[in-house]
Amino acid sequence: MKKNEINIKNRKRETICFPESTLPRVVVIGGGFAGLAIVEKLKGKPVQVVLIDKNNFYQFQPLFYQVATSGLEPDSIVFPFRKQIGRSKNIIFRLAEVMEIKTEENIVVTNKGTISYDYLVLATGSTTNFFGMENVEQNSLGMKDIRDSLNIRHMMLQNLEQAAITCDDKERDALTNFVIVGGGPAGVEMAGALAEFCKYILPKDYPEYPASIMKIYLLEAVDELLVTMSDNASTKTLSYLKALHVHVLLNESVVDYDGEVVKTKSGKEIYARNLIWTAGVKGQLPKGIGNQSITRGNRLITNEHLLVEGYKNVFAIGDLAAQISSDTPRGHPQVAQVAIQQGRFLAKTVMEIIEQKKPLTKHFIYKDKGSLATVGKRRAVADLGKLKFSGYTAWLLWSLVHLMSISGFRNKLLVGMNWAISYFSYDKSNRLIIRNFKRKL
Amino acid sequence: MKKNEINIKNRKRETICFPESTLPRVVVIGGGFAGLAIVEKLKGKPVQVVLIDKNNFYQFQPLFYQVATSGLEPDSIVFPFRKQIGRSKNIIFRLAEVMEIKTEENIVVTNKGTISYDYLVLATGSTTNFFGMENVEQNSLGMKDIRDSLNIRHMMLQNLEQAAITCDDKERDALTNFVIVGGGPAGVEMAGALAEFCKYILPKDYPEYPASIMKIYLLEAVDELLVTMSDNASTKTLSYLKALHVHVLLNESVVDYDGEVVKTKSGKEIYARNLIWTAGVKGQLPKGIGNQSITRGNRLITNEHLLVEGYKNVFAIGDLAAQISSDTPRGHPQVAQVAIQQGRFLAKTVMEIIEQKKPLTKHFIYKDKGSLATVGKRRAVADLGKLKFSGYTAWLLWSLVHLMSISGFRNKLLVGMNWAISYFSYDKSNRLIIRNFKRKL
Repeated sequence: MKKNEINIKNRKRETICFPESTLPRVVVIGGGFAGLAIVEKLKGKPVQVVLIDKNNFYQFQPLFYQVATSGLEPDSIVFPFRKQIGRSKNIIFRLAEVMEIKTEENIVVTNKGTISYDYLVLATGSTTNFFGMENVEQNSLGMKDIRDSLNIRHMMLQNLEQAAITCDDKERDALTNFVIVGGGPAGVEMAGALAEFCKYILPKDYPEYPASIMKIYLLEAVDELLVTMSDNASTKTLSYLKALHVHVLLNESVVDYDGEVVKTKSGKEIYARNLIWTAGVKGQLPKGIGNQSITRGNRLITNEHLLVEGYKNVFAIGDLAAQISSDTPRGHPQVAQVAIQQGRFLAKTVMEIIEQKKPLTKHFIYKDKGSLATVGKRRAVADLGKLKFSGYTAWLLWSLVHLMSISGFRNKLLVGMNWAISYFSYDKSNRLIIRNFKRKL
Repeated sequence: MKKNEINIKNRKRETICFPESTLPRVVVIGGGFAGLAIVEKLKGKPVQVVLIDKNNFYQFQPLFYQVATSGLEPDSIVFPFRKQIGRSKNIIFRLAEVMEIKTEENIVVTNKGTISYDYLVLATGSTTNFFGMENVEQNSLGMKDIRDSLNIRHMMLQNLEQAAITCDDKERDALTNFVIVGGGPAGVEMAGALAEFCKYILPKDYPEYPASIMKIYLLEAVDELLVTMSDNASTKTLSYLKALHVHVLLNESVVDYDGEVVKTKSGKEIYARNLIWTAGVKGQLPKGIGNQSITRGNRLITNEHLLVEGYKNVFAIGDLAAQISSDTPRGHPQVAQVAIQQGRFLAKTVMEIIEQKKPLTKHFIYKDKGSLATVGKRRAVADLGKLKFSGYTAWLLWSLVHLMSISGFRNKLLVGMNWAISYFSYDKSNRLIIRNFKRKL
């Protein structure tokens, strides 16, 4: 059988409807930074690209903490795939949840039916890692999905409302205490935003309370914040957070949490109804990939062309991929920049394979453009190669980079407008509890 | 016992926490147009006002259909009570759901505890009336809450996505057919907005479909649309909808719906997975009010001072109230204008009662400022007293009136900006399915 005939035979096995095409098909699972990058680059190319995602929108993760703290509304930082894809005839979006991959049959099984592929790109990203602590997982909230951010917001606002209702002082303290676990960018930015909420919003919205009622704790397991950034960034961040009255506990981690009392490694007990977990991630791997391809952190081992070990037509990019080499013994860092660069790289590689340009010459090499993190308004830290700086300039750069990275003119406008209003008025977006927060939605 | 001592005795029975005060207390249940109007007017007056609502936000109902059709995001048309109340010391908001009223003890029982009152204002509004048709209720969606609007949006977008997946033509038709029941302003405006979605958005987002795939039916039980408006308005609206390819069925109503087939009174069967019900409302009455006070449509009979029949300190305003008199044998129409005017009127009356100005001289008289309804972009109908007109001018007036009525500068800006973008680009807000739609959430 010729290649085309194989394609057609595969197609006959699928149950989800597609426009007819004899082009080779690349199925991309997951439309995050990595998935969307490859899809964008394959627009107009002689392949049929099928993007599968369980959401109909792409999420801009770096600003989740602003949605969680009512600084932005979700529609400002999520963007529908169908708008992004536009009228590109060779890109097809299918809203479905992947249940399993049958690599021997080249078939993806979803909750809506089956889809066949010629080349498969796994870009399913990572999810919160609670390292097996079930109590913590059940009673705290991660921040890896826009729904997580909304849950944090609803938890926070509902608990603040409940604090106004209760006559019990200890209960009120627990309702207004916040513990953030993990001193990486997500935890630091969340702590900064919460501290500003406490400083500027709380006295306006809840004049009944003393301003000091809300306490914010940030726990980090090692002896510095932002461990992947420079010493300068770590030290500055610590002083910024202290100035905002955040209680930073270094060399400290959570060992148990029942929804009321946070128990720490050093034996501390903190009464808090609000625990936000940003202390780790693990690969989000669909069923059906052999164990031999999986490495620590539930990531997939790939070669320098991002081909998953043990497969001939299955690739992995983004947080899920671990390109193990002497330079990167644990794979690349799980950050947006790597994901985007891998997505773009793989688009070229896949086209080379399809066009049978052999041998593949180029290897994926990550170009680190630097790191930024912000602590509230007007304060940020930046490491750009050898250039390390902080303060207002870093914050302006942070704002600019994030605004430019958001998809779509409308979203840029919304975010820019909200930031401008918030810059001058110190007020934030509407604080709405549209969906009631319940543990484990 | 003196009046003040009674207040204090009452306070001791409550379990929800309040700042101490010896002022007489007015408890307002429900922060819709009516409830918010009275609260606003009582700002700074010598009374303690407690606003209870199950949401932490006020909803601008007239634009629900735009949220449902992805024209606006929910945060544009809902506004948090705490922002609205601001720092007014005599107004207190409590997020709670009312379970029962104990009128003999002057106590409101909520899911968070009890609250005592000296004067009670019921402003709980109305909810969708399915007239006892359980099948219809279970399988269709009303539009009386912002969550209803989001449910409609999610149902619609999920069904459009599912239509792309299915290979079965009949199933695809059912997924893309929409039936709207009720030819009042809500139904007409919804039909117009859906028709525009179909005309401008569908071909962009779903180039796989023929544009004709989405069919919209509007069913009205009597022989004209917008029955409360002028003949001119009714006729114009009908022609506008026909121009947008909406199938308007007059003298037609739904008798059964199983989620797939809409059965009508005249014997028609329409395959449709999407049924939106705007055909009736009924008063949303908390438990504990005596049957003698309840009239048709589950509304409360009030006198000309809006005092509920059979009570001395319980008032009703807005959709829930039916002020029965020779001029208004069935009470006033259940519209925003009546609610706002009643709220403002009652603020004065309650203060007169508290200040013991006897006898109460003023009666509530409704001043009808006219009606407006819009059918898609650039087309609307207006009845302003004897002045009846339609078309572009009416649409400009409609836009202006609605924009001015929305609370808060930020919301006005958001809505205005969205409308402007949509006016020029024919595109709409982000079409997101953030919460999965499931029947009966």
